[in-house]
Amino acid sequence: MSTKKQKNGNTIFFENAPRITSFAAVCGSKESAGILGNYADITLQDDMYGESTFEKAECKMLATAISLAIEKGGYREKDIDVLLSGDLLNQIISASFAARDFNFPFLGVYNACSTMSEAMLLGAAFVNAGYIKRAVAATGSHFASAERQYRYPLELGCTRPPQAQWTVTGAGGCVISDGDKGIKIVNGTMGKVCDYGVTDVNNMGAAMAPAAADTILQHFKDTGTDPTDYDLILTGDLGALGSRIVKDLTWEKGFDISANHVDCGEIVYKVIEMEFQGGSGAGCSATVLNSYILTKMSSGLYKRVLFAATGALLSTVSSGQGESIPCISHAVQLEV
Amino acid sequence: MSTKKQKNGNTIFFENAPRITSFAAVCGSKESAGILGNYADITLQDDMYGESTFEKAECKMLATAISLAIEKGGYREKDIDVLLSGDLLNQIISASFAARDFNFPFLGVYNACSTMSEAMLLGAAFVNAGYIKRAVAATGSHFASAERQYRYPLELGCTRPPQAQWTVTGAGGCVISDGDKGIKIVNGTMGKVCDYGVTDVNNMGAAMAPAAADTILQHFKDTGTDPTDYDLILTGDLGALGSRIVKDLTWEKGFDISANHVDCGEIVYKVIEMEFQGGSGAGCSATVLNSYILTKMSSGLYKRVLFAATGALLSTVSSGQGESIPCISHAVQLEV
Repeated sequence: MSTKKQKNGNTIFFENAPRITSFAAVCGSKESAGILGNYADITLQDDMYGESTFEKAECKMLATAISLAIEKGGYREKDIDVLLSGDLLNQIISASFAARDFNFPFLGVYNACSTMSEAMLLGAAFVNAGYIKRAVAATGSHFASAERQYRYPLELGCTRPPQAQWTVTGAGGCVISDGDKGIKIVNGTMGKVCDYGVTDVNNMGAAMAPAAADTILQHFKDTGTDPTDYDLILTGDLGALGSRIVKDLTWEKGFDISANHVDCGEIVYKVIEMEFQGGSGAGCSATVLNSYILTKMSSGLYKRVLFAATGALLSTVSSGQGESIPCISHAVQLEV
Repeated sequence: MSTKKQKNGNTIFFENAPRITSFAAVCGSKESAGILGNYADITLQDDMYGESTFEKAECKMLATAISLAIEKGGYREKDIDVLLSGDLLNQIISASFAARDFNFPFLGVYNACSTMSEAMLLGAAFVNAGYIKRAVAATGSHFASAERQYRYPLELGCTRPPQAQWTVTGAGGCVISDGDKGIKIVNGTMGKVCDYGVTDVNNMGAAMAPAAADTILQHFKDTGTDPTDYDLILTGDLGALGSRIVKDLTWEKGFDISANHVDCGEIVYKVIEMEFQGGSGAGCSATVLNSYILTKMSSGLYKRVLFAATGALLSTVSSGQGESIPCISHAVQLEV
């Protein structure tokens, strides 16, 4: 064990700087009209992906993203020590059934749409400690499976309110490895549950923004950095409204992130698609990070990125029982 | 980073031996008629626990077990660095809402009824690496919330088949800390997903036994131990039938665990309660471990225990779509 301080506040420092050595993303047909169309490895023509149900299609996307990340890194199945994954479906069946396809251990994780950063934090922690050489962190979501599980059957044709977002159909994953090539994971800030009392299940951005602000501010404090130290402060799926709120909340505490804050949900769809507040779902930040962002980091456009995915920890049961929406955000600092 | 080998096969060795310094369990009224009646910290008279819904009662049990574990260790909230928790409800709402009560970070984990050992493995890994001083690992379940989510509304009064088990109403948790007092967590074996094609959702024991056998055998191989090295090989909730199967499967591979294998599901209820195969649910192993077993370890009755909780990674949707039941088991080796 090193004698160097490995934690400050809620941030764990990875002194051996585990690397993201490869990454991959699969996205749906609607998503391919936006930036993902140019950066995802596979863009589906049919969101059923040759399967008989939406859930099976979601699982196949996730398994494909995992396989592709392994393959693109020049690895084989035996080179991977563990899969860290979870998803929005009840009992994280996409991740569990995807894990069935692989002959390495599986640790199921779930923090809703912050699952990507949670999995990356855990994977980096394991690699940094020398427990393992290589982990895969991955997650995904599917618009149609999320709609029928969380909201209404698509067949009902319900109208969406203006504060709503659109669940991204897509999956993304990356290999976190020891060694000295690739994008460094420098540290990770573990989030706390924040609940500001929002009960509107159509307004995830407003519910999640306080959690994002809490983790971003905690990260600045723990690492002694400020917004100008980052090329990009990337949130997961706050959408347009949530992004405005997170800018306000951090500004109130003396940090102006407006110049370099970008939300994956805000950029995933083309503006002309009119998806109200933008994209959401675990697949939102997973696809944008594991295609566009990491590609741009690899080419040197972004040198230092704070990735803070955000999750709304509700279920249809908790909302039905009148509960508000507790939220969380975990962050990892990435550098080239 | 230490130069000593920290991993062999799928087992991570914790050379600094993180300690379980305190533990606590809460159980329901039915459960208090068995061994938990003498060993749990709180035995409920009313399984609603003063709440308006089963789900809220489940959450309150979990939050209480977490609080009690912290309190019994002489700790305060500020002494805890992270909560590792998950549960069987959709979107692990018991854990997420319980986490809302505490002012420390939360990492949501889910591997069904193997969540307890998964959380302990992750907590021990973080403490051992020196990232944190102290983690709480906890989980729980509630018979009534599980029945209506996974099976049928209680009001229907459905008959249970003889291969069925009874979901334990209870929650348990422990504090994993650095230092040199308490029960050591020596290593942890990460499980792989195993699926032998069982589709009967009433026969969890048969579905999960291959995963338990796989992890136990992997553990023996990685650590160079055999059944005689353990005072107890403790599985989570295989029940009577599943326990027979795991004994057969390990025996076929040359390891006879019959002399020291005990299943939490088999011992949690009194035999006269006629619960067919016994107890199940994430709360089953969590309560038995965090009361009876750890008490007996503390008093020196058991010196070396292999705890391998087992989880069935299905959902009502996956079963409804004709899928078989993938299962997993993670193990931690405990020593005094």
